[in-house]
Amino acid sequence: MSMLIYEGKSKKVYDLGNKELLLEFKDEVTAFDGKYKDIVREKGSLSARLSATLFEVLEKAGVNTHYICFKKDRFLKVRKYKAIPLEIIVRNYAYGSFLKRMPLVKPLKKFIKPIVEFHFKNDELHDPLLLDQDINEAGLLDYDELIRVKEIALRVNEVLSEFWNKHNLRLVDLKIEVGKDPNTNDIVVIDDLSGDSMRVLTDKGEHLDKEVYRRTRNIDLLIKGYRRLAEIAGYPTRICSS
Amino acid sequence: MSMLIYEGKSKKVYDLGNKELLLEFKDEVTAFDGKYKDIVREKGSLSARLSATLFEVLEKAGVNTHYICFKKDRFLKVRKYKAIPLEIIVRNYAYGSFLKRMPLVKPLKKFIKPIVEFHFKNDELHDPLLLDQDINEAGLLDYDELIRVKEIALRVNEVLSEFWNKHNLRLVDLKIEVGKDPNTNDIVVIDDLSGDSMRVLTDKGEHLDKEVYRRTRNIDLLIKGYRRLAEIAGYPTRICSS
Repeated sequence: MSMLIYEGKSKKVYDLGNKELLLEFKDEVTAFDGKYKDIVREKGSLSARLSATLFEVLEKAGVNTHYICFKKDRFLKVRKYKAIPLEIIVRNYAYGSFLKRMPLVKPLKKFIKPIVEFHFKNDELHDPLLLDQDINEAGLLDYDELIRVKEIALRVNEVLSEFWNKHNLRLVDLKIEVGKDPNTNDIVVIDDLSGDSMRVLTDKGEHLDKEVYRRTRNIDLLIKGYRRLAEIAGYPTRICSS
Repeated sequence: MSMLIYEGKSKKVYDLGNKELLLEFKDEVTAFDGKYKDIVREKGSLSARLSATLFEVLEKAGVNTHYICFKKDRFLKVRKYKAIPLEIIVRNYAYGSFLKRMPLVKPLKKFIKPIVEFHFKNDELHDPLLLDQDINEAGLLDYDELIRVKEIALRVNEVLSEFWNKHNLRLVDLKIEVGKDPNTNDIVVIDDLSGDSMRVLTDKGEHLDKEVYRRTRNIDLLIKGYRRLAEIAGYPTRICSS
């Protein structure tokens, strides 16, 4: 018995009981807080597969995630954690909303060191940028946890940058979300890891990520990029037995 | 001979030569990036007087500012520095744009410690919040200077909080701007210190600052607050001789 407990822009989440969730990746793409929206066949399965594969890459590198196994097609089985309403962005190159707030920096300038940003996860407010103290004052994370989350975000960035680099791709930036184990207070990476949540550039400067849709709304071009990302990443190995 | 070199929303700036400027405080109030605008008689002279008095308070407390002397009515003579395009906000209580980005915190909650924010001074972008790394990557301030500016901002907040507290007023937040001496690289407080750049509450919770205009657009109520602030602060003592 599974119960739908959440439906977002790109995923449905079912509670499987026993502290497990099922993530269903939808064939939908949205941009600019839902202003644009399209159905894109294959997107759900490609994103589920890529997420599973990248979660396995992270786990092998010692990063704790919610991932349990890939349940074929468009489904992932994951452990249930208390989600923290933050989007954590790591940037290697100047792009996107960074350039909107700091246009003095040249697009695609490589940062001296990666920038870790916290945003309040809130569509209505357009996910505003937060300072460390804001998060602390709101009681979302204490300072030790903030440091821990930054370490995790930087480690995820390091592992995935290397992963794409091996295939001549460049990780411009990524977004992760984290959850907390209510008993141990351990912090783990949750949500998904797909072309929706990172910008990946080829050596020719082509996007293999959602930026294609933001810029052109061309869903054929979009799915071409997602297919290439998934092909390069390969297949997950932890397949759910049931 | 003085030459108008800049006209902003609330001030005109004239170059006096000899690395000195003349600030003229206008009888104008604007809100929401210039969406609302009114002429408010007396505002210029009250703001000039209050700025001069508060600059003297800061100087006595050892904070370096651009202030030279009060040149009667609506004019201040100041030293010329290289302006850095940042607005530095110090918050003691949750209010204004803080609550817009972090609505989980209760309005007027006293912060555990004051929050120092950097915003890129850019009307078109609505003065976006910046991270330390943004400022560094843009080449506006290096990390040592960032620390120095934060120290200065906190010291200004401490001195002015005490100053208003003595008169049963509460400093909710303040905005300063800083400039750099092109030769020594010293950082000093520039711009103005008036009801336009800080929120001051009475023990009954009345605003004596620009918030009155933002909320009510009542210019009579606004000038009453500014008059009270100026009366409480008293008069500057360094009067320009010419």
